[in-house]
Amino acid sequence: MNVNGTPYRTLWMEGATVRMINQPLIPHRFEIVALPTHRETARAIKTMVVRGAGAIGAAAGYGMAQVALEAPGGAGFISYIEQGAATLRQTRPTAQDLFYAIDQVLEAIRGAEGVAAARQAAVARAEALADENAAAGEAIGRHGAALIPDGARILTHCNAGWLAFVDWGSALAPVYMAARQGKRVFVFADETRPRCQGAMLTAWELQGEGIPHAVIADNAAGYLMRRGEIDMVFVGADRIAANGDVANKIGTYEKAVVASVHDIPFYVTAPLSTLDPACPDGDSIPIEERDQDEVLYAVGLDDRGEISRVRLAHDKAQARNPAFDVTPARYVRAIITQRGIHAPGDLPLDGLR
Amino acid sequence: MNVNGTPYRTLWMEGATVRMINQPLIPHRFEIVALPTHRETARAIKTMVVRGAGAIGAAAGYGMAQVALEAPGGAGFISYIEQGAATLRQTRPTAQDLFYAIDQVLEAIRGAEGVAAARQAAVARAEALADENAAAGEAIGRHGAALIPDGARILTHCNAGWLAFVDWGSALAPVYMAARQGKRVFVFADETRPRCQGAMLTAWELQGEGIPHAVIADNAAGYLMRRGEIDMVFVGADRIAANGDVANKIGTYEKAVVASVHDIPFYVTAPLSTLDPACPDGDSIPIEERDQDEVLYAVGLDDRGEISRVRLAHDKAQARNPAFDVTPARYVRAIITQRGIHAPGDLPLDGLR
Repeated sequence: MNVNGTPYRTLWMEGATVRMINQPLIPHRFEIVALPTHRETARAIKTMVVRGAGAIGAAAGYGMAQVALEAPGGAGFISYIEQGAATLRQTRPTAQDLFYAIDQVLEAIRGAEGVAAARQAAVARAEALADENAAAGEAIGRHGAALIPDGARILTHCNAGWLAFVDWGSALAPVYMAARQGKRVFVFADETRPRCQGAMLTAWELQGEGIPHAVIADNAAGYLMRRGEIDMVFVGADRIAANGDVANKIGTYEKAVVASVHDIPFYVTAPLSTLDPACPDGDSIPIEERDQDEVLYAVGLDDRGEISRVRLAHDKAQARNPAFDVTPARYVRAIITQRGIHAPGDLPLDGLR
Repeated sequence: MNVNGTPYRTLWMEGATVRMINQPLIPHRFEIVALPTHRETARAIKTMVVRGAGAIGAAAGYGMAQVALEAPGGAGFISYIEQGAATLRQTRPTAQDLFYAIDQVLEAIRGAEGVAAARQAAVARAEALADENAAAGEAIGRHGAALIPDGARILTHCNAGWLAFVDWGSALAPVYMAARQGKRVFVFADETRPRCQGAMLTAWELQGEGIPHAVIADNAAGYLMRRGEIDMVFVGADRIAANGDVANKIGTYEKAVVASVHDIPFYVTAPLSTLDPACPDGDSIPIEERDQDEVLYAVGLDDRGEISRVRLAHDKAQARNPAFDVTPARYVRAIITQRGIHAPGDLPLDGLR
C-alpha cells in the first residue's frame, strides 16, 4: 500500500538483507530497518519492530532464508539451520504463523539436493510465503469490497491493515479495494486502548491511501451507531474457533454486541491460517493478560518530538489488562477469507493450509 | 472523603477565601488552591480547576458569597452584585447547577435588609447549598448501598465521585457507604477516554478510601461482564430526561447495552437537580462535541515529573469527540436519587428543588 505516494510492503528481502518498516515509530516517523542476518531479524520479531500475525510469519520465513544463506557449506550446514530455526522459534511463542513459516522453509531446505540448491529453495519458499500472504489479503479485499456500498461509513477496531500482514491486510483490505474501485468510503478508527493501534497504525495507513477517516475514543462507537452514522463494521481476528467464535483485540466483543442491537452488519476478516479447526469454540481460546503498565500509561510523541509515555493513574494503581476477547458467532454476520464469504457456522475447515 | 487519611471536601470557604482541590493535578499532585476574590473563583470554574456538576454549583454559590463580601456598601452594592453574578454566569455556559446556585444566592441577598445582613445571608445560603449537595450524596449512598451485597464487584464509568460534588459523589457514594457498613467491595474503574477521569480521578478517590480497585481500558468492560466478573454497574448522569433516558459520559451507552445482554443490573445515580422535567426524552438532550485534540492526545505525568501530553495519531489526523451519549431508559435498572430508588419510568419529577 502507499506511504506518501510510494507503494510499500511491510517487509521484504533484498539479497541477504531483510528490510521492514519500524512499526513502533509509526505514525510519528517512517523508517526502514535493515537486518543483515537472521539474528537481527529474530530480534526485530521479538521486540515487535514487526507485529501482526501475517507479517510475523513472513519475517520468520525470511529469517530462515537468511539462516540458509549464512550457513557454512559442508558438515556444519544442517546444524546451523537447526540452531537458526530454534532462535526464530523463541521470538514470539504464541504466534501460529511463525511456526508455520519456519516449518515451510525447513521443508524446502530439506527437499533440496546440495547446499546451493537448499539456499535457493529457502529464499524461494520465503518469497512465496510473503506473496501468498499479500495475495490472501488482496482476495479478502475483493470478496469484502463486494459488501461495501458507495458512500459507506465503516467502523474498524485495532489494526488489521497492511502493517499487520505483508500487504493489504484483512479488515482494511475490503476498504482499500472498495476505494480503488472508485467507491467513496469513510472509516471511523477506534483508537483501541490500551496500545492505540487504531490511532497510531490504522489512521496512518488510511492517510497513506487517501481514505477519509476519523479517530474516535473506543467509547464513542456506540454513540455513532445509535445515531445511524455507522453502516458496517470490519474487524480482523487473532483466532477463529471451529464454531465461528472469534478471538480478537479487546473491545471487539462490545462493538459486536452494540452493532447487533442496531442491526449493523459485523464482518470478521482473516486469512484461512487464522481458522483453528482444533479449537471447538471461543471459550477454549486462552486469553492473554498483559502488563498492567499498558493501561496505566499512554505512549505517544511528546513536545520534544520523542516517543515517550505518560502515566495516567495514581502511583499505587493496579490495572487489569486482558489483550483479547471472544465474540460469539451469533454476533458475526459473516467471516471473510481469501476463499470467499462464509457464514460463521459454515467455515471452510477442510484442507486448511 | 479521605485523602491520605485526612477528610476533605472538594471545596469550602474560610472567611472570604474559597479553597478547592486543584483537580487537573489529580492524581499526580494534591494541592489546595486559595481563591481570595470572586474573580479568581470564576477563573477556577472556567479553567476546570473544579469540575463536576455539584462541585461547580457549590463553587458558583461561594463565588456569589465572595461578591457580596467584596461589594462596596451604599449605592454601588447592587450593581457590584449584578456584575459579579454576570462574571460567574459566563464561566461554564451549559452547567445547570451553576445558574441555580447563583440565583439562590442572589435571592438570599435580595431578601435581606441592609448590606451587612445581605452579606451574612449570601454566605449562609452558599454554605447551605454546599451542605445540601454533600447531604444529597450521602443519601444517594445510603439508598444505593442497600443494593450492594457483600463481596460485590462493581463497574463504574468516568468519575461521579466526591470530586464531582462537594462530598460523597453520586455513583461512588453507594460504594463508599457500603464499605463503611463493613461490606467488601471491589471496583473496576473504566479509564474513560478521552479525558481519563476514571484512571485519574476515580482510582485516586478509591485509593484514598482504601477500596480495592483496578483500572481497565474501556474496551475491557464487556470481556469482564462476559466472564461473570462484574456483578453490577453504577454510573452518574449529566442529565436525566422525564422518560428516564440518561445522558452521561461517552461510553456509558455501550456499557449499558452489554450489561443488559448479561442481565447485570445497571444503576444510574444523581441528585434531583440532574432530572430535567422539561426534557421529554434522551434525543432532546443536546450532545456537546469537544476539541478533537482530547482524542488525538493523552495527558499524564511524564518522566520529568511534569503533567504533559503525548500525541497518539498522525499529524494530519482528524477525530470525532462526542463528550456524552444517551442511554435509553430500558437499559437502566433503577435511578437512585437522594429521595430513594426509582424506576426510570417513575421519576419524582414534581417539586424538584
